[in-house]
Amino acid sequence: MPTASPTTFDDPPVFPRGFRCTSTNCGLKPDAKDLALFVSEKDAAAAAVFTRNHFPGAPVTLGRETIRAGRLRAIVANSKCSNVATGARGLENARRMAAAAAKEIGSSADRVLVSSTGVIGVQLAIEKIERGLVGLAASLQSNPMVGAEGIMTTDTHPKALSARVGGATIAWVAKGSGMIEPNMATMLAYIFTDAEFEASALDAMLRQAVHVSFNMLSVDTDTSTSDTCAILANGLAGRVDEAAFLETLIAGCIRMTEMLARDGEGAQHLLRTTVRGARSEDDARRIAKSLVNSPLIKTMVHGADPNVGRLLMAVGKAFDVDVRPASTDAWINGHAVVKGGERLDFDEALVRTALGNEVVDLEVALGTGDASATAFGCDLTAGYIEENAAYYSS
Amino acid sequence: MPTASPTTFDDPPVFPRGFRCTSTNCGLKPDAKDLALFVSEKDAAAAAVFTRNHFPGAPVTLGRETIRAGRLRAIVANSKCSNVATGARGLENARRMAAAAAKEIGSSADRVLVSSTGVIGVQLAIEKIERGLVGLAASLQSNPMVGAEGIMTTDTHPKALSARVGGATIAWVAKGSGMIEPNMATMLAYIFTDAEFEASALDAMLRQAVHVSFNMLSVDTDTSTSDTCAILANGLAGRVDEAAFLETLIAGCIRMTEMLARDGEGAQHLLRTTVRGARSEDDARRIAKSLVNSPLIKTMVHGADPNVGRLLMAVGKAFDVDVRPASTDAWINGHAVVKGGERLDFDEALVRTALGNEVVDLEVALGTGDASATAFGCDLTAGYIEENAAYYSS
Repeated sequence: MPTASPTTFDDPPVFPRGFRCTSTNCGLKPDAKDLALFVSEKDAAAAAVFTRNHFPGAPVTLGRETIRAGRLRAIVANSKCSNVATGARGLENARRMAAAAAKEIGSSADRVLVSSTGVIGVQLAIEKIERGLVGLAASLQSNPMVGAEGIMTTDTHPKALSARVGGATIAWVAKGSGMIEPNMATMLAYIFTDAEFEASALDAMLRQAVHVSFNMLSVDTDTSTSDTCAILANGLAGRVDEAAFLETLIAGCIRMTEMLARDGEGAQHLLRTTVRGARSEDDARRIAKSLVNSPLIKTMVHGADPNVGRLLMAVGKAFDVDVRPASTDAWINGHAVVKGGERLDFDEALVRTALGNEVVDLEVALGTGDASATAFGCDLTAGYIEENAAYYSS
Repeated sequence: MPTASPTTFDDPPVFPRGFRCTSTNCGLKPDAKDLALFVSEKDAAAAAVFTRNHFPGAPVTLGRETIRAGRLRAIVANSKCSNVATGARGLENARRMAAAAAKEIGSSADRVLVSSTGVIGVQLAIEKIERGLVGLAASLQSNPMVGAEGIMTTDTHPKALSARVGGATIAWVAKGSGMIEPNMATMLAYIFTDAEFEASALDAMLRQAVHVSFNMLSVDTDTSTSDTCAILANGLAGRVDEAAFLETLIAGCIRMTEMLARDGEGAQHLLRTTVRGARSEDDARRIAKSLVNSPLIKTMVHGADPNVGRLLMAVGKAFDVDVRPASTDAWINGHAVVKGGERLDFDEALVRTALGNEVVDLEVALGTGDASATAFGCDLTAGYIEENAAYYSS
């Protein structure tokens, strides 16, 4: 079972010292906000991870180049159009977007990370973005939710978190609700801190945190072409204990992952699948993912239907993992439902009620070793289908 | 594009000489047929492949033992209960089912293949099946659809095919509409022929045919614990040309795969995804499966929404495959939509209409080699969710 993190998150979330953000409608969407700007008052050490999809968007291609220096002043992001599969013109538009943001805040384009999210295969209306950026710095403010609003697509609410480590603050801002099985990062997740770290240390910590959080998230098994997770540390709070920082960084990334999963397209439940007693962490991760991605498990959770044989099916279809039926046990929100590979004679009414909880924890013990992993997802509903059967046209 | 097979199928389908079948309601379901019996008048050479799921049902465990001799007289199959995750008692019940069928037809239990399909984790009501088998041989008949009726679960219609090779006939009977991404075989598919072959030759041909048909089928990425595909050859028509037989065997397996895909739970379209120009067959198969399994492609087909960027997303998330954006082209029912990794400026109304066809062919050319593969699936609809949110309870 995933243990409750001792980390306390601020309510409402706040930005670390020296960070501000804003968002606006620049005309990509009819009315909703579609352009966000996040700025540090001084250059920040930075690290980022990006999608492993073979068709990365132009902003990802540019971002890989930009992040090499390990320094960022700002992030500029638009929703509605992802600037993917747009060729040389798309890359040029991403560069223009960085340049326009840099000009507005008095920095240089190579210190600006660009993100775009939305439909694939449509050219960016770059002139609207350039016009939208003029004067936008005047509205920069310290509420991270304002930036979060500017990067929403099918998200039902903006997502931001913050927590304290020593004298420093970490803030997370993210979006993502469909085309979500990140590999290296999630759709768009930005982390800001006033703690002081070298870019190389940030990079190592970011990878550790992403490994157990965003990379264990799946709404629909579809890996976006735009996934980006970046961390900026402007150092205004000075040095803090690295172990404490890492612990809080991981806790916030996991909490944000849960928020993204719970807000998966059409979702009504947060589904957490934990595998214990695996021979290796890789085994545990594969089976946790097999469980969280199974349409038959997702619909079982949706219908609160205690069809627990599906747990064994989803464990058993991980062909390359060491699975021994005789040592396999399973629980649903703490209720034992499988023992030694056989269905137990459990109280169906109790399990049905447990499956009705907003958070459903499925736990499997493999009995082959000591490794464990947790994956994060959601139920599968008609809402997912409605949203995605006409996403392009609507 | 999958080429239309020149094979002509009989309408209605017929059984080869010496094969008969029947089905009945033995009380597992309220009214519908739930028990089927397929019998050859003499021992047939036989081969079979089974699920690779780590939690095979008791009938699969027993079937692996039975098929070793390469001889079968009969297949007995029930629906409603899969006899999976039922331990030693489940295996004993599978043996009793084989014995009861053998007694009814005057054979021995080791010549009877047993299959069970339905809910996982429930003990088989073996007494009902034993009672149901008494006297059942009296109703054996030569219409394969009668047997097909007895193995249906959520299938909307019984599925049988037949075709001629030289002086022999091949008949296919199958079921399967959910928990369908077979690996080694499909849910339940039985093939009968009066051609004469050794069991070893049958086994080799069956594996070749399954490789390009049932093993390229996916309704929902979930691999059943009961998948079984068996072929019985009773030799009554004597020897036929092996190459011609194999060609027809493959054509029928592909056609049956298309029928299973089209009747996937909630499906309104048959979705075929063909990958050409891949560096290896394995690369082509992986990408064809990635396309056919993508929820965002399945909902795009459901909604006839020309959101063609999703094709690139699904090609690009096959991380281990050699993909080069600049050489990647794609078509929807023959309409070019992607060229060199970029979305073309195609006629959206035309493509929208093409996506409305009952059969939707997505084709991707990778430009990295000469290998190709086709996968078979269906669209994702609210009907799939309805059926599976209360499958156990209903």
